[in-house]
Amino acid sequence: MAVILDGKETSEKVMEELAAQVEELKGKGVTPTLALVLTGTDKYSSRYVRMKVKRAENLGMEARFHHLEETTTEEVVKIVEGLCEDPEIHGVLVQLPVAEGLDEGAIVEAVTPEKDVDGISPSTLGKILLGEESFLPAGVDAIFELFRRYDLDPEGKHWVVAGSTNWLGKPLIASLANMNVTVSACGKDDLRMSELVREADVVCTELSKKHAVTADMVKDGVIVIDNGNNYEGKKVFGDVDFDAVSEKASAITPVPGGVGPLLVTMLMSNTVKAASLSSV
Amino acid sequence: MAVILDGKETSEKVMEELAAQVEELKGKGVTPTLALVLTGTDKYSSRYVRMKVKRAENLGMEARFHHLEETTTEEVVKIVEGLCEDPEIHGVLVQLPVAEGLDEGAIVEAVTPEKDVDGISPSTLGKILLGEESFLPAGVDAIFELFRRYDLDPEGKHWVVAGSTNWLGKPLIASLANMNVTVSACGKDDLRMSELVREADVVCTELSKKHAVTADMVKDGVIVIDNGNNYEGKKVFGDVDFDAVSEKASAITPVPGGVGPLLVTMLMSNTVKAASLSSV
Repeated sequence: MAVILDGKETSEKVMEELAAQVEELKGKGVTPTLALVLTGTDKYSSRYVRMKVKRAENLGMEARFHHLEETTTEEVVKIVEGLCEDPEIHGVLVQLPVAEGLDEGAIVEAVTPEKDVDGISPSTLGKILLGEESFLPAGVDAIFELFRRYDLDPEGKHWVVAGSTNWLGKPLIASLANMNVTVSACGKDDLRMSELVREADVVCTELSKKHAVTADMVKDGVIVIDNGNNYEGKKVFGDVDFDAVSEKASAITPVPGGVGPLLVTMLMSNTVKAASLSSV
Repeated sequence: MAVILDGKETSEKVMEELAAQVEELKGKGVTPTLALVLTGTDKYSSRYVRMKVKRAENLGMEARFHHLEETTTEEVVKIVEGLCEDPEIHGVLVQLPVAEGLDEGAIVEAVTPEKDVDGISPSTLGKILLGEESFLPAGVDAIFELFRRYDLDPEGKHWVVAGSTNWLGKPLIASLANMNVTVSACGKDDLRMSELVREADVVCTELSKKHAVTADMVKDGVIVIDNGNNYEGKKVFGDVDFDAVSEKASAITPVPGGVGPLLVTMLMSNTVKAASLSSV
């Protein structure tokens, strides 16, 4: 029976540690500060950003929230550039997707790598690919955090990334390309997927398909990171058939409660890291 | 018996086509212009850059060569920034590695993606990973050019990248992560290499080891891209045992004469592309 990689419990531990670090930084006169930029009027995005603001404040950090309901690419770029130059701000988050009609590429490029605590700019992603020091997107960071907390060694393993997005699978592949691992990646409709997954020591899915990975597809002892969020009404299912696969896996993330609860936490962690780098 | 992917012949064809494009652009009043920045006194780098200058000039392009024998990071960054802002210059190349003592990361970051015809800046590499329009590093571009010229379809295949560097294997992986392919990558000492290579439809090596890939390691019909340059005296050998492997492969690059002769050519091709984009 697999170890359950409990993202909620891990998140709580990380948050406790972060609160202590924030306290310590404030003792040195540095208040970790995150700027959040929201464009447009999408309700889901708005709720999500406000949750991030609240989480930062709960940690004792400062959150500076900029909501631009009606705006232009030029205005957003100018604001982001200003935030990146402001020495009081340690991290800059632009909530994606940006409002319709805005040039997301131009906006994202305005976030400088030193403040890109959400790991979204091409420059940050290029640094990850080159193996340079940089912030990782929250999803990638969350996966490595689970490995650390559960004493799993990411090295020496065959990682299979099944399905990928710009914010998780691709930066994960870039990250793994600099580690002592074998990495295989395939699209969600790749006919070689079963064959690859069967060889995986670690499988990371972004398949948007309920129970796309079944027990007969994995080998004994596999570590499973399920990034699926497949809703049926109000119930959410992962990409992996959890009950059956957890009989064979050595470790597995549940859905919900796996990587998800760590996403906002890792954003906070990156901001605290940025603040402590700035205080040296 | 495999088709030989002849880089020399392909390069000559591409150069002919580029010469015609340069002529056409000049007719519109645009002279494709490449700025080349060399730091330090390394003889090999100096020779290589001068060869690039000559190649550009032979095509009818303009080459602006900046040789900074003794310099500082600040000076190089300032020069690169100036070149990137100069509307007469279409491509900016910084010869790597930069001279000892200089901060290569800072210099490379100063090259803006629109002029990064050598595909070295983190921002360019991030765009490649995100699947955005951008220049490809010459080695990656050379591989896809060979596929085009020999009517090979890169899609639908299992690519195995055995060994990788910042200027070829890693950007290749990033590129493939956006195509309809399966991609596997392993380090040069990875114990799973043989197993992976055996499954490859396309194998691309950067192993720095003479004949590391032997005939028993590949499947029939494989396409082999050999990026090894392993010298024994004045003779150079690839990573692949060419004679034996070419009996099983469907297509294979020789060493020398495969990807190598295309490298400078693809740099020219990118510069001409940058010039024609600027003339629209």
